[in-house]
Amino acid sequence: METVSTSKSFGGIQGVYRHESRECASEMTFALYLPPQAEDGPVPLLWYLSGLTCTHQNVMDKGEYRRAAAEHGVAVICPDTSPRGADVPDEPDNWQFGQGAGFYVDATEPAFARNYRMASYIISELPELLAGRFPLDMNRQSIFGHSMGGHGAITLALKRPGRFRSVSAFAPIAQPSTAGWSRTAFEKYLGQDEQAWRAYDATHLIEDGFRLPELLVDQGDADGFLDDGLRPWLLEEACKAAGIPLTLNMRAGYDHSYFFISTFMADHIAWHAERLK
Amino acid sequence: METVSTSKSFGGIQGVYRHESRECASEMTFALYLPPQAEDGPVPLLWYLSGLTCTHQNVMDKGEYRRAAAEHGVAVICPDTSPRGADVPDEPDNWQFGQGAGFYVDATEPAFARNYRMASYIISELPELLAGRFPLDMNRQSIFGHSMGGHGAITLALKRPGRFRSVSAFAPIAQPSTAGWSRTAFEKYLGQDEQAWRAYDATHLIEDGFRLPELLVDQGDADGFLDDGLRPWLLEEACKAAGIPLTLNMRAGYDHSYFFISTFMADHIAWHAERLK
Repeated sequence: METVSTSKSFGGIQGVYRHESRECASEMTFALYLPPQAEDGPVPLLWYLSGLTCTHQNVMDKGEYRRAAAEHGVAVICPDTSPRGADVPDEPDNWQFGQGAGFYVDATEPAFARNYRMASYIISELPELLAGRFPLDMNRQSIFGHSMGGHGAITLALKRPGRFRSVSAFAPIAQPSTAGWSRTAFEKYLGQDEQAWRAYDATHLIEDGFRLPELLVDQGDADGFLDDGLRPWLLEEACKAAGIPLTLNMRAGYDHSYFFISTFMADHIAWHAERLK
Repeated sequence: METVSTSKSFGGIQGVYRHESRECASEMTFALYLPPQAEDGPVPLLWYLSGLTCTHQNVMDKGEYRRAAAEHGVAVICPDTSPRGADVPDEPDNWQFGQGAGFYVDATEPAFARNYRMASYIISELPELLAGRFPLDMNRQSIFGHSMGGHGAITLALKRPGRFRSVSAFAPIAQPSTAGWSRTAFEKYLGQDEQAWRAYDATHLIEDGFRLPELLVDQGDADGFLDDGLRPWLLEEACKAAGIPLTLNMRAGYDHSYFFISTFMADHIAWHAERLK
């Protein structure tokens, strides 16, 4: 693993690291913020999964998570959203598929199965890499994210009860297997049998019996993707039917951007920190 | 004037606007954050001047000023750092001169005098443009900035007693007329007579009798530009000799980046807000 950069920020260290990924068969880059408390011993780890088109860098630059992470003594890791590199199959003109659009699945279709293994990368490889190298308490992890990454956080946690102490999302895609901007990617990564897609669809996982102890979601009501892509009411219905306590904060006037995310970032970090104590 | 974008953020509005500039003879873009208090009437205006290579966007994305600005009810304007466009003379391979490096001077050399008028743009044209269009109390203005922009804030305020209620800077260039990364720009913008440079050099302006009621500076001690480019001790000496109360916070371990700026942004905004009451 190579250290790309480190900078002191809010008393802690914002680092960027690069490594050869076994799961993605490509070089991968991630950002890790260690709060000042990490100097005195292991701190809990909060995963932030980003949305379509993002790398590790977008939320590192615009997410405004470090002040709250330093206040609460929580480390924040921001992985990339897909495998990367000239050898990784891609559709450069399509922002909804390929590089920057891994959807946190393990692809099964032959063309993509070698590289597009973001679920295993996030759940297995990256935690193994981090555990030995940084002062992190791997028994205390939580997860959140935005849009494709908010959905990724919910699905990864649903399938692994107890792995994450808490789960939240900004403007998550509620049901990607039926949304226009994600259906094509699901078909290309997972094949034409839509039954196989259910394992990566939040509302379908809930219908199929997977549970979370609770869920926090913030959603802007001026979000241009609300009606066609995000559809939080589908998540609301699924949680209600399953008895999952969902706090869905509809935020008047907010859009899908980092201006929205950063506004509510400190609320989400405080909420996770309470559950990571 | 054209509205490029507006997004709700921390209860207020982060806007980006574009206009044809009289002073710069080019199209110019700026960012303006209006806090939620602006809905109820005019709010004070805090100017943030950015450093070399930046546009209006860098601090808008990475500066983390909106939370504190919303808390204190202060608008924040972030102008560009130079005239822009294919018709504006430039040295694209030189990050210390030309576009992105206006140094907040009014150029006098013929090749640059038509466009490079950032002092007049910031002091005259942009305030006139804002005054009629946004709920701003133009009798309550303060100014700060980073590096080239921190120096710009200090010099623009020094020469206009009473215009700004308070002045602060992150890692300002203390004496650009003798620093390697700025001397060439001064010569190209202002000519070979170094006497003419004194009107745009903070320490020389102080030596020449210009005064500020007080000055706040934060500087990282791990800043790679500290010894050759920034040299805060020159500012410290000039302020001491002139009786200007300077608070110079040397911050252990911090570099020159937005990770440093964002860490101390809220402190500076609170300090200005107190003086804008």
